[in-house]
Amino acid sequence: MQTPRTAALLGASGYTGADLLRLGVRHPGLKFVALTANTHAGKPMASVYPHLAGAGLPDLVANEDVDFSGIDVVFCGLPHGTSQNLVARIIEHNPALRVIDMGADFRFRDPADYGPVYGDAHVAPDLQARAAYGLTEYNRDAIREAQIIACPGCYPTATLLALLPLVQAGAISTDDMIIDAKSGVSGAGRAPKQATLMAEAGESVAPYSVGVHRHAPEIEQEIGLAAGKKVAVNFTPHLIPMSRGELITAHVRLDKAENADAVRAVLREAYADEPFIRVAEKGVIPSTGHVRGSNYCVINVFDDRIPGRVIVIATIDNLVKGSAGQAIQNFNVAFGFPEATAIEALPLFP
Amino acid sequence: MQTPRTAALLGASGYTGADLLRLGVRHPGLKFVALTANTHAGKPMASVYPHLAGAGLPDLVANEDVDFSGIDVVFCGLPHGTSQNLVARIIEHNPALRVIDMGADFRFRDPADYGPVYGDAHVAPDLQARAAYGLTEYNRDAIREAQIIACPGCYPTATLLALLPLVQAGAISTDDMIIDAKSGVSGAGRAPKQATLMAEAGESVAPYSVGVHRHAPEIEQEIGLAAGKKVAVNFTPHLIPMSRGELITAHVRLDKAENADAVRAVLREAYADEPFIRVAEKGVIPSTGHVRGSNYCVINVFDDRIPGRVIVIATIDNLVKGSAGQAIQNFNVAFGFPEATAIEALPLFP
Amino acid sequence: MQTPRTAALLGASGYTGADLLRLGVRHPGLKFVALTANTHAGKPMASVYPHLAGAGLPDLVANEDVDFSGIDVVFCGLPHGTSQNLVARIIEHNPALRVIDMGADFRFRDPADYGPVYGDAHVAPDLQARAAYGLTEYNRDAIREAQIIACPGCYPTATLLALLPLVQAGAISTDDMIIDAKSGVSGAGRAPKQATLMAEAGESVAPYSVGVHRHAPEIEQEIGLAAGKKVAVNFTPHLIPMSRGELITAHVRLDKAENADAVRAVLREAYADEPFIRVAEKGVIPSTGHVRGSNYCVINVFDDRIPGRVIVIATIDNLVKGSAGQAIQNFNVAFGFPEATAIEALPLFP
Amino acid sequence: MQTPRTAALLGASGYTGADLLRLGVRHPGLKFVALTANTHAGKPMASVYPHLAGAGLPDLVANEDVDFSGIDVVFCGLPHGTSQNLVARIIEHNPALRVIDMGADFRFRDPADYGPVYGDAHVAPDLQARAAYGLTEYNRDAIREAQIIACPGCYPTATLLALLPLVQAGAISTDDMIIDAKSGVSGAGRAPKQATLMAEAGESVAPYSVGVHRHAPEIEQEIGLAAGKKVAVNFTPHLIPMSRGELITAHVRLDKAENADAVRAVLREAYADEPFIRVAEKGVIPSTGHVRGSNYCVINVFDDRIPGRVIVIATIDNLVKGSAGQAIQNFNVAFGFPEATAIEALPLFP
Repeated sequence: MQTPRTAALLGASGYTGADLLRLGVRHPGLKFVALTANTHAGKPMASVYPHLAGAGLPDLVANEDVDFSGIDVVFCGLPHGTSQNLVARIIEHNPALRVIDMGADFRFRDPADYGPVYGDAHVAPDLQARAAYGLTEYNRDAIREAQIIACPGCYPTATLLALLPLVQAGAISTDDMIIDAKSGVSGAGRAPKQATLMAEAGESVAPYSVGVHRHAPEIEQEIGLAAGKKVAVNFTPHLIPMSRGELITAHVRLDKAENADAVRAVLREAYADEPFIRVAEKGVIPSTGHVRGSNYCVINVFDDRIPGRVIVIATIDNLVKGSAGQAIQNFNVAFGFPEATAIEALPLFP
Repeated sequence: MQTPRTAALLGASGYTGADLLRLGVRHPGLKFVALTANTHAGKPMASVYPHLAGAGLPDLVANEDVDFSGIDVVFCGLPHGTSQNLVARIIEHNPALRVIDMGADFRFRDPADYGPVYGDAHVAPDLQARAAYGLTEYNRDAIREAQIIACPGCYPTATLLALLPLVQAGAISTDDMIIDAKSGVSGAGRAPKQATLMAEAGESVAPYSVGVHRHAPEIEQEIGLAAGKKVAVNFTPHLIPMSRGELITAHVRLDKAENADAVRAVLREAYADEPFIRVAEKGVIPSTGHVRGSNYCVINVFDDRIPGRVIVIATIDNLVKGSAGQAIQNFNVAFGFPEATAIEALPLFP
Repeated sequence: MQTPRTAALLGASGYTGADLLRLGVRHPGLKFVALTANTHAGKPMASVYPHLAGAGLPDLVANEDVDFSGIDVVFCGLPHGTSQNLVARIIEHNPALRVIDMGADFRFRDPADYGPVYGDAHVAPDLQARAAYGLTEYNRDAIREAQIIACPGCYPTATLLALLPLVQAGAISTDDMIIDAKSGVSGAGRAPKQATLMAEAGESVAPYSVGVHRHAPEIEQEIGLAAGKKVAVNFTPHLIPMSRGELITAHVRLDKAENADAVRAVLREAYADEPFIRVAEKGVIPSTGHVRGSNYCVINVFDDRIPGRVIVIATIDNLVKGSAGQAIQNFNVAFGFPEATAIEALPLFP
Repeated sequence: MQTPRTAALLGASGYTGADLLRLGVRHPGLKFVALTANTHAGKPMASVYPHLAGAGLPDLVANEDVDFSGIDVVFCGLPHGTSQNLVARIIEHNPALRVIDMGADFRFRDPADYGPVYGDAHVAPDLQARAAYGLTEYNRDAIREAQIIACPGCYPTATLLALLPLVQAGAISTDDMIIDAKSGVSGAGRAPKQATLMAEAGESVAPYSVGVHRHAPEIEQEIGLAAGKKVAVNFTPHLIPMSRGELITAHVRLDKAENADAVRAVLREAYADEPFIRVAEKGVIPSTGHVRGSNYCVINVFDDRIPGRVIVIATIDNLVKGSAGQAIQNFNVAFGFPEATAIEALPLFP
């Protein structure tokens, strides 16, 4: 085993940051030497996340108090818009350092696409050329080389794992893709909001950001790239009364494939050697409970009552394969560790 | 106020039966004189449902021990297949009696459609001519006259309230209707099943009966009738970790209407005088929390990212407007009581 | 039926305020003419609580914009410390008006007890003489006459209903009363807090305010009054992953009663004529599901393994009998309406 | 690292069995060669527990179809009463084999105590002499040598970890110990029961087995042993609407210790070198969320309002430290592996 790489985590007080630590502290090739959380600077990590007590982590500091000179890898769990600026400064300071960003700042291949979706123009467009889109299964070569790895959003991760091989194979049409998505509340973050209070989100289901969610253009970018043309998708997320987990129900039209069995066969072939992607047996319906707490993605396909259509269902843990787990998977790819290191745990059920 | 009508409830040990009692015992025009539950015959109702203690209800008896001669109305909350037989016998015994069925046995206008969906042929096809489909808002005249009122399934209720006026107005197309539905676990009934244990259904979301749910043909029957042609719909229900509530997200193609505002205007006009249907203000997203425990249905419409499509969202409480509440609403229509009697409670939130 | 009384609700944006409206708008003797919520002034109520859409309520205004001259009754759902000041001003303006306070400001019989518990001294100590402690079942005469009715805290309501008759009868000792309490998250209010986010409070149970909860001195006041001596109780609340409901498990020592049956008999006699208090059958264990959404309280008693001790269990809906429902019950007593008016709904289960 | 030990798991279809596999398949020193589940014999494990798909496990067989001759260790996750018989037969067949029992059959040090609690007399009383009570932290020497390791019940684990060192030190009295316990529904098992349906257990809290739970005598046995006298405890469990996790709130009387700080100091000293027991910082309230999915136990102590009493709170994951995790910890002790092998994962939060 190699010498451990030294790591900083920026944004350690968010759920994705905390989950990166949960997994990362058991990684023999990772050593966290700096954790930041501006509003909690000075506190021990255990006072912010008691479940991490005893993990031997450094105290929280402010972003500006980190010495990046001896650091090999920076994980970013910051709100969108803040990484671009910070990463530019960090890289200038230590050009050898690599960045694995769990946020949205480097996900658009063309930085011009960032502004219309996130409200402010990209402030480090020149860096985009050094970034790889971090959907591990589809981009290992680029991830291995890139200085910045932009981990996909949680919804794009589940959606693209389900649909990309089908689009690439021409099995389904890119017209009228309806992606009806469901997610637990942890995706909304730890900052207190009325909508994610237990008394509001509990015993309830509701769509949100209908027609305007920021993950739709990201999905369209990657589907469009695979299809070789511009596409528009329906992406409709729903808030589900659970903490973790995400499931997408994609209602799509067949193209070359003739039915669900044929579509499943395409998936099975595409993922035959993938350690984290499981195409379920015919008839087995994926549930978020099948992947909770793990880096796995489970997918299956069903015939629709409407002729010429199928339903593709995929599920991941939004904080693991949808964020922190995929970040570690990308770290493993980028730094030459076995890809499953520290993320090999089986799902927690029940 | 009229003299109270005497009522029997068959199947009082199910959730819909219990909810009918919760509402019905506060109805000044209803008096429950017989409650049946074959496996619990002989027990007081409170031993089966402690929340109904003190409601002054008769003890449970077996179906065959009820004297139907003095009874005005029979509510049925029985499993499908059992009402057809029983209702035939009851009506033979007391031809003046009326039946309000919360089960599936009389929902298909052509009894020949029943067998292929529910597995066994209809055993009382002659009675179907005396039955009205009990979607109150669309069938008041027939409900007023019919001897048997077949209350719609919970999913058809929400779906049809959302889509029927749009189909009738030609606002949307009946091609490619994708109805992605979400329901709490009470819809699966009180009989213990592994899938609805809290340890299984909690902290989880999963589709079920994908492509084969029995409510799809019922939806197709009514949409088809409104459209004047045979239609096929995608109906994909999901089990949500909550007890009550149901929400459908209908992804549909526009026809005459040009956008979500126009579609909403059609709904608003259709429901202007309806006491229980609320078309929400533009931008307000329906949530099951907005209708919990009540007979209300809330609907709204949103533009899709895919041009020429809209998303219609509707929510009801599956046990109230989706079953017991609508049964009482139909009782009120059938027997000449003000339509909101006993179901006027506002939703319980949080 | 009398002419409806005109009412103002101060603090309509909290959960107790909203639940008062849910119940109160169906009260034939109540007409809400003013609703206040300072941070939401100017908005329609439905924009703050969509489940109240269509209830015909006035828009929200600021406290200072209410004309109290024509108002018969003011319901207060304000944070502690704010009612004392406001009520003093209101009463000065309209001395005929009566106040039903769901907050803590007038719960201590001696205003000197208020400061040590709530942090600031009582600012309207002279008004305390006009206040009655609003535990309906124990204080109807005073409630009928008082200008201010101080509804008890939710935990004191459940605890006192379970233990007061036992202390009064000398059935149990007031030494070593251990009250282990459990509550849903709605008791913590609607203001966003990290601890009541679904991702934090869901799938979790945790005690809070251990040894220092403000309801302990209130319980001690009433138990002490009944016992004729100063008492100290262990009161240990736990946050439960549910929205509504409260259950107290009181571990107490027997005095004159010899076992659980004898204790239950005392309760049964005490509550023989009470419409909202149910002493369950021997062996039936109370659950919050038996009272959800209703004004009922269910109590039962069990023998302990430790000789000479019993376990008394009581459950209420914290927002109804623990707050808004009891407020309406007190309104009914105070203004001469039948006591169950508008709060007669049976519990919502499941 | 040693050669892996070959293992059989009897009762693989229960939650504790499944959780043993989740953890055990990642143990480099364990190889599962036989899994039994009589009602599912012949099925692949993934068809019973989809989250274990791809873990490389053998198919399920019947107990009688296992060849125990080459097996080093048998884990039992069977219902009480079935292990005694089966273990006797297995040991006769292969006297070198060791048994780690997660059930109740060998927990009573005197087999005569078993019958009165579990209803039928112990059928293998001679084997009891070969059994060690498997509360790892208190019995390592015996566990290292014993042929049968009887893992404690989940509630005794949490309770004893909290109270044993205090009783041993004389810090607290063994009179009037009130143990108010809370558990998620997974403790009730996977067999469908009405009480653990989501529609029943969700949005609800209720005590159960009040005064008669089978874990009370087990707690009394160990507390009594430490105290050197017979003790009776109040043990009152509550069902909480969550899947995993357990928290006990012990209301106890001080003896030699003078307050919560002194009690905490005793715990801190007792557990200074224990990898899985964390005594929290003063003021930090344990929550099941602090240990979910992990083998950790978190404990803290608080002063009571009643002089001379303290409140000791402890939390574990009922399926891990309360069952499968402790079983693996005992395997590690018994077979000479580092004690944390395969159970070092940090808790899953949120």
